[in-house]
Amino acid sequence: MAKQKLSNARIQRDIAVGKLATFCDAIKLGELTVPIVTFLPSNVSIEISPDENLLRGAMKAGIHINASCGGSGVCGKCLVYLEKGRVTGEELAGGGWKACATYALTDIEIRVPVESQMDRKALERPLARRAASWMQSHGSQIHWQVHPIVTKINVTLPQPSFADSVSDLERLQRELAQGQLQGVNIAVDNQVLFDLPNALRSANWQLKVSLMEAGGFGQRRLIRVESACEGHACSQHLGLAFDIGTTTVSGQVVELEHGNVLAEASNYNPQVSFGEDVISRMEFARKPEGLFVLKSKIVGCLNGLIDDLCARTGAKKDDISLIYIAANTVMTHFLLGLETKFLRQSPYLPVATQFPPVRAADIGLQIPNHVRLFCAPCVASYVGGDIVAGVVGINMDRQSALTLFIDIGTNGEIVLGNQDWMACAACSAGPAFEGGGIQHGMRATVGAVEVVRLHPETLEPMSLTIGNKKAKGICGSGIISLMAGLFMTGALDKQGKFRRDHQTWRIREGRDGWEYVVVGQEATSIGRDIVFTEADIENLIRAKGAMFAGYQTLLESVGMTFDDLERVVLAGNFGSYLDLEQAITIGFLPDIAREKFFFAGNTSLLGAKASCVTSEAIKRQKTVAEMMTHFDLSGNPSFMEHYMAALFLPHTEASLFPSIAQ
Amino acid sequence: MAKQKLSNARIQRDIAVGKLATFCDAIKLGELTVPIVTFLPSNVSIEISPDENLLRGAMKAGIHINASCGGSGVCGKCLVYLEKGRVTGEELAGGGWKACATYALTDIEIRVPVESQMDRKALERPLARRAASWMQSHGSQIHWQVHPIVTKINVTLPQPSFADSVSDLERLQRELAQGQLQGVNIAVDNQVLFDLPNALRSANWQLKVSLMEAGGFGQRRLIRVESACEGHACSQHLGLAFDIGTTTVSGQVVELEHGNVLAEASNYNPQVSFGEDVISRMEFARKPEGLFVLKSKIVGCLNGLIDDLCARTGAKKDDISLIYIAANTVMTHFLLGLETKFLRQSPYLPVATQFPPVRAADIGLQIPNHVRLFCAPCVASYVGGDIVAGVVGINMDRQSALTLFIDIGTNGEIVLGNQDWMACAACSAGPAFEGGGIQHGMRATVGAVEVVRLHPETLEPMSLTIGNKKAKGICGSGIISLMAGLFMTGALDKQGKFRRDHQTWRIREGRDGWEYVVVGQEATSIGRDIVFTEADIENLIRAKGAMFAGYQTLLESVGMTFDDLERVVLAGNFGSYLDLEQAITIGFLPDIAREKFFFAGNTSLLGAKASCVTSEAIKRQKTVAEMMTHFDLSGNPSFMEHYMAALFLPHTEASLFPSIAQ
Repeated sequence: MAKQKLSNARIQRDIAVGKLATFCDAIKLGELTVPIVTFLPSNVSIEISPDENLLRGAMKAGIHINASCGGSGVCGKCLVYLEKGRVTGEELAGGGWKACATYALTDIEIRVPVESQMDRKALERPLARRAASWMQSHGSQIHWQVHPIVTKINVTLPQPSFADSVSDLERLQRELAQGQLQGVNIAVDNQVLFDLPNALRSANWQLKVSLMEAGGFGQRRLIRVESACEGHACSQHLGLAFDIGTTTVSGQVVELEHGNVLAEASNYNPQVSFGEDVISRMEFARKPEGLFVLKSKIVGCLNGLIDDLCARTGAKKDDISLIYIAANTVMTHFLLGLETKFLRQSPYLPVATQFPPVRAADIGLQIPNHVRLFCAPCVASYVGGDIVAGVVGINMDRQSALTLFIDIGTNGEIVLGNQDWMACAACSAGPAFEGGGIQHGMRATVGAVEVVRLHPETLEPMSLTIGNKKAKGICGSGIISLMAGLFMTGALDKQGKFRRDHQTWRIREGRDGWEYVVVGQEATSIGRDIVFTEADIENLIRAKGAMFAGYQTLLESVGMTFDDLERVVLAGNFGSYLDLEQAITIGFLPDIAREKFFFAGNTSLLGAKASCVTSEAIKRQKTVAEMMTHFDLSGNPSFMEHYMAALFLPHTEASLFPSIAQ
Repeated sequence: MAKQKLSNARIQRDIAVGKLATFCDAIKLGELTVPIVTFLPSNVSIEISPDENLLRGAMKAGIHINASCGGSGVCGKCLVYLEKGRVTGEELAGGGWKACATYALTDIEIRVPVESQMDRKALERPLARRAASWMQSHGSQIHWQVHPIVTKINVTLPQPSFADSVSDLERLQRELAQGQLQGVNIAVDNQVLFDLPNALRSANWQLKVSLMEAGGFGQRRLIRVESACEGHACSQHLGLAFDIGTTTVSGQVVELEHGNVLAEASNYNPQVSFGEDVISRMEFARKPEGLFVLKSKIVGCLNGLIDDLCARTGAKKDDISLIYIAANTVMTHFLLGLETKFLRQSPYLPVATQFPPVRAADIGLQIPNHVRLFCAPCVASYVGGDIVAGVVGINMDRQSALTLFIDIGTNGEIVLGNQDWMACAACSAGPAFEGGGIQHGMRATVGAVEVVRLHPETLEPMSLTIGNKKAKGICGSGIISLMAGLFMTGALDKQGKFRRDHQTWRIREGRDGWEYVVVGQEATSIGRDIVFTEADIENLIRAKGAMFAGYQTLLESVGMTFDDLERVVLAGNFGSYLDLEQAITIGFLPDIAREKFFFAGNTSLLGAKASCVTSEAIKRQKTVAEMMTHFDLSGNPSFMEHYMAALFLPHTEASLFPSIAQ
């Protein structure tokens, strides 16, 4: 800790009185440097953020500390002893500190007690390794040139006179035709005529006009006129990007001058009350008013998010110039109020896969009338606009590198290809990786166990919950780390069954068969043990098996193997702890060079954002949707064969997982 | 009367019991031939329709019969004596028949009594001469090739399968692209997506689609899909054409297969409650909600007419494919809800002169959502879409003959030119020719005196009212014939003042100055005398003077004179009695060869109808609106000079009216 302008204690006090939001703010402000924590006896050192407790630090460092309550401070098992430096937190009578409630104030050394320690052998396991961030590694390549589909330009018109008495609209059109839009066919929204006369006269014939690219042949549509104005009085030029997932809806406000994201917000898709998955919701849609109810729900959700995003940025709805939405095929149908009956019946036809832009107000959004809403084009019933937007979002259609793009949402979709060709498929993996079909599975929110590491001998867990709250359940990354941990410690065999002879109370025969106790009821917020059952594991094996068989089928269809892959890009909301090694260990990801993996987060939202920033992204999505060859895996014999072979940990064919076999 | 299958008495009975609507029906049915009536002593014979009373017959024959009650049967002055043949009607005690209530049953001879007779000299006046019908003389040239802007075509799609599982919309687009619309860019209304899945599946993948020409470059827009069907189950393909005048709104239903008019309806423009003329309505529009009220009124009127037109033809609203409206600039602004404030302020700018099509439902019409409403383009504040539509309606933009087009509505607009160039102007003639600003002026409806002929010595009138009802007032054609009659009999001098020394009680000094009593109060429905005053005449002289000065100014602007005119086409709702000779006598029309005059009726509605029938008419209106050179007469010194010279009967410069001077 070389530099420290303020004492950490002073900063802590500032945080307490609300002067600083977090330690991170202080670091950003340059007021504080990052403390280093050294774990003894293994002598591993890492930097630790001042708002990260020591338990999270240990997790990051690969140090095991028993912590069965997820870091909520209940179990008191995560004791550590301060050897050097200063900390703040809860010191217990015996001189120990609870790691889950203790923060470094200076560089420190702490000693892990013997009951938490592992022998050296355990330390030789590969450390947790996260996939590299796609945005960090490739962000520079996907810097969009800002050129939104709606542009705002200033126009000054000549004042009218008897000698020049053309109508207001003709005056404007004449000026546009003489300027940068020479020869461009400009259609006019009727709405514009209501605003034009007063807008012209209230700012001395200086206008700001919004023009939208429309139709083909470089046509434009005049969708809005405002008085030109200076500084703060002027409306902003904003786009809203949304990803509508089956489970979660996320949105961003993007300013369209430089393409920066001003704010993000997300919420659950309220349609979940009518079914967890798209199939049950389509069933609901067949009831009288069912489709209308589903549409109203998602529209209400978007309205709420828009209010939220406006509030966070101080934007007015009048500042919004366009909305772009990426969603799967079924969600897009629900949003637009389109019939989903025939999506459920063989041969599973969508009403449309390319959707004409609509007025946002027409579908019920509380948005000024000029704002158009665009939906990302879909490929087929189960490969939707979220995937197409994702492909464009990560620039896959502009690069020669052979890429496997994997989007794990409520379903699992994959795309294989590059700028020249693409093949895609939906793997019917189900929502297991989002916690669906898992007894204590839950979404990645506060109270979810997001990571678990097991003591290789005692099987005592070191678990962390999101928000350090009492555990409510286990989310996707927690599930993967649990399964990988149980398999690597030998507690789970290749078929996904528990060893019955393990010397720990945590593996037991429960009401629903054999299970592992992740969190005892005293440390949960649900009043009972949180367990991970053989039935859960069976679901997970089926899910990862479907994904893996999908990869194989697509590769095989083009005569390639995993060795040909130059990149694997993972998309989805896994929380921050998805561990590559663990995901490969259970056979969910292929066992190839780790540096080929990238984690790209919510690529659907990324593509939607790109579509706000540049109209080129919209055009590219159309091209991508048209160029993708869709494989229907459900009737594919090769897929079924691969699937059966993948129902083992990591796989029946060991040669596919050389690093795990080792 | 050669042929007579039924006795006229029998036919009369059938009419009485409602079996036949009128005698005319009987004639049409071939049940009756047309009787001939011979007036004695002048021995003039004419054919007379069995539902025309003898007074109307006399008017047509140029025979004077005193009849001061307008033909309502009240005054009893129109006695005639039957010499031969049979009549039906009211026979009086002395053996005479009231001409206004008597109908011919056979060929007849009747004697006009001495008090009604004129000397031969009076008979040598030119007979009433109506302008030739434009439609009868030129109708064959303006037969529109049927090619509406919305076309309906049948498409049969291949049934879907797993091997061909593209979306419903893509399936349709693919089929259209392979058919007659190869290479055409087809945009899609979002609405279509709601109807498409069920429409496809309910008629075995056979569709009827409505495509609208849109944008430039031959683009199309898919606005509607229906199940293909056979015969009566199928929707019709109809257009609605409207002319919205300041005073009257007229509409037609046009079937778009062959371009035939199926029904017509009209009503008053209910905005009259808020002002007789456009100026007072624009003042009203400045009140809070004023514009909204005016818009609602006209929309309500259109809705009523649409219901009426549907009822008359048995059409459903679903059968309507498009609506075309021709209206003056102010009416168009009101209809679309556009600000008229700046039309009232120098330099009098419309918001727009070319109007983007709107969804009819969006402006409040109770019409399915796919129906677009088009408005005829305008030229300037006071030369509107009614004029532009009229010019295209009479084909003026396609002919080399130099034409003067005169539209007398609530204002008076004129266009001079041919296919190569056009000049136009509004003459600010005011509504005098529609009865406005005339003490007993009224619109051409039941009870209006529509024609008056004066006994050259006694000045006793022979007047007819519309519907043979008691007189309520005098309409345009009545006003012109009154003024011409008074002038020709010498009762009125060139300045439009009554001779004070005339030996008739009918010319008297009234409350408001000198006046002529057209109908005594005993024969009116308003309980007082209907008079025609010097103030009325002054207004009329100003109105006809403005029109005439307008003709001169436009001609002069292109270095031409009246002699260069090849045609004069009169448009407007003058009723059936506008008499060319009378109109020239008062200097309202130029004194040129009578065969150059044509009467075309409501040309605005004609142009609107053409625009339903063929999209070419819509494009031509755009071209016409752009090619017209607009002359603002209000500030034109040449116009003011001509106007001052025209404030005489017929004109200061006698050489302009050689046939009248004679």
